[in-house]
Amino acid sequence: MPDRDLPLPQVHAIIPAGGAGSRLWPLSRQEKPKFLLDLLGNGRTLLQETFDRLKEVSLTITVVTGAAHYEEVCRQLPDLTGEGPDPFPGEILVEPSPRDSMAAIGLAAYIIRGRYGDEAIIGSFAADHAITSQRAFNAAVENAVAGARLGYLTTWGIVPDAPSTAYGYIEPAPRRLAEHLYQVERFVEKPAAELAEEYVARGYLWNAGIFVFTAEKLAAAMRAEIPEMDRGLSTIAAEHLQTLVSRGEAEPINEEQWAGLKKIAIDYALAEPLAARGEVAVVETSPDLGWSDVGDFRALRELRVGGEGNLVLAEKHVRVLGLANVGVIDTQDALLVLDLDDAQAVREAVEQLREEGLENLL
Amino acid sequence: MPDRDLPLPQVHAIIPAGGAGSRLWPLSRQEKPKFLLDLLGNGRTLLQETFDRLKEVSLTITVVTGAAHYEEVCRQLPDLTGEGPDPFPGEILVEPSPRDSMAAIGLAAYIIRGRYGDEAIIGSFAADHAITSQRAFNAAVENAVAGARLGYLTTWGIVPDAPSTAYGYIEPAPRRLAEHLYQVERFVEKPAAELAEEYVARGYLWNAGIFVFTAEKLAAAMRAEIPEMDRGLSTIAAEHLQTLVSRGEAEPINEEQWAGLKKIAIDYALAEPLAARGEVAVVETSPDLGWSDVGDFRALRELRVGGEGNLVLAEKHVRVLGLANVGVIDTQDALLVLDLDDAQAVREAVEQLREEGLENLL
Repeated sequence: MPDRDLPLPQVHAIIPAGGAGSRLWPLSRQEKPKFLLDLLGNGRTLLQETFDRLKEVSLTITVVTGAAHYEEVCRQLPDLTGEGPDPFPGEILVEPSPRDSMAAIGLAAYIIRGRYGDEAIIGSFAADHAITSQRAFNAAVENAVAGARLGYLTTWGIVPDAPSTAYGYIEPAPRRLAEHLYQVERFVEKPAAELAEEYVARGYLWNAGIFVFTAEKLAAAMRAEIPEMDRGLSTIAAEHLQTLVSRGEAEPINEEQWAGLKKIAIDYALAEPLAARGEVAVVETSPDLGWSDVGDFRALRELRVGGEGNLVLAEKHVRVLGLANVGVIDTQDALLVLDLDDAQAVREAVEQLREEGLENLL
Repeated sequence: MPDRDLPLPQVHAIIPAGGAGSRLWPLSRQEKPKFLLDLLGNGRTLLQETFDRLKEVSLTITVVTGAAHYEEVCRQLPDLTGEGPDPFPGEILVEPSPRDSMAAIGLAAYIIRGRYGDEAIIGSFAADHAITSQRAFNAAVENAVAGARLGYLTTWGIVPDAPSTAYGYIEPAPRRLAEHLYQVERFVEKPAAELAEEYVARGYLWNAGIFVFTAEKLAAAMRAEIPEMDRGLSTIAAEHLQTLVSRGEAEPINEEQWAGLKKIAIDYALAEPLAARGEVAVVETSPDLGWSDVGDFRALRELRVGGEGNLVLAEKHVRVLGLANVGVIDTQDALLVLDLDDAQAVREAVEQLREEGLENLL
């Protein structure tokens, strides 16, 4: 790799592959959530694209997913199970039950720590985001690794192009740690519209939900903040590391121990308390990154149509007459037609379906 | 029938069953046009409802349709073919090729004249309109029969409830001929919006495309206005009347003669020139009639939803979010989503499909 400034790869990547993406119903379903879908229409699912991107910057890749999706994840990532033409080191961990992101990331991180030691640099990357520039992605990973090496729990911040109310924000501290790297003052929740404008004006960044850290840093932070989870995951990871399984088989996880873990997001468990102590850094990513969380149909329209007009996803012939800014999402058994300005309301519509007892459509 | 003011039945009804209703695509198709569809969702097609209504006021019913729809018309009207439980006198005539409404109505009328004589009162009723009150329908037929007996080509006028641009208008002359019956000053084409308001303000009526007349009046008018068609249809009708066929069989029509007939609508061929000579009358129908030509999805929304909101027609589960006044029309192979204010533009969209070579969707 003579044309690269820094040697790659360098992180042990974790892909927590959970979450339904219910704002993308009726495309996303309980059986086939967002990360398993080819939402961009390019022949690769979001999970596959995440894997493809990470291959360039990773030593190993660990996917953490639920039992319901294990088979499909294996099918989509043959290189990770050893079935594919270009095997890549790593594993697929199956959570016996959903225990939110701290447990999922912590489990994978403790197993990686057991295998590669305290110095291992670990990154957790969402399974269902889109990124358009591999080059910018690599650069952002480099910068995050620099932050991790400095001892920070390091996140990615996206420079907002609009005062979105769909994302949490990160307030960077004035202190610059390195190129594109800042200490984090605080994390703030998804704001109302007015507050979002204020945040953007003040230079806050969108929280992309990505974390890079050394194995040692994570273990120390968990011991301090969530000691019970630290003990539980240490036991589970140690047990797991003693078990030899063939590639392509689900690796056993101690179900009883797992069920006792606290359900909490890494954001609340670690990111916020560590930020309060000045131990979190944020990479200001390049606009070239083309990051999107593909969070709703409006975001998907941006990716597929380019910001304006109608988003039509259907197997059959569709005509839209006299309407702009609408989404028409047709599937075998359900059809959604929406004003794309109401794209966030799809989640509530899905809740309604549940209340109406239409479980078969979820 | 002791509770009726006038004895029923009294007309020989003609139902010209042609026309695609392309503004109702993708429900209506070349293979299954509007009149063959259960558009109101009540289990009866528009043709069947027309037949049911006419039974009460008719001596005979003659359906004129194309070869492509003959079998389905027979299937839908078993009482007319003698297959059903309640046989009704009449016949189903098959046009060898489409020759517009004057030829279709003229053919049936000349055959009726041959069978029942010059005094026979004949009414032509659209196959694809909706009417909510049988009582008001019967009354309007009575009034039209009165007009026909007075020697007028008698039409129905609908009192507008809005300045619609979707209908032609009838200007009634001040002279009242009988109860709810006026001489017609002139017919005017579908107007632009501004003109429509003027028409409504002046008391013009919507042209419902219904004609009632004596056999003698029609023959005289055709001899005067379209002598070639009079001769052609006289020959075809005479030939047809000499042929004995069983019920349920298509009655033979002389194809060569038929192909030579002029393609013209009865409105241009007879109604307009006769109106200019003061020989047309119009029945001002009761608002109770609940007449609709079910001309587009906005009209269908009025009938099915009641004037406001969305019109959703689909076999699968449909959610509409953040949109009012839209139509969502889902079929096996095509889906239309439209602003119902653009309902008239569906016809152009269908033309576009043809230009795009998507014949299989038409």
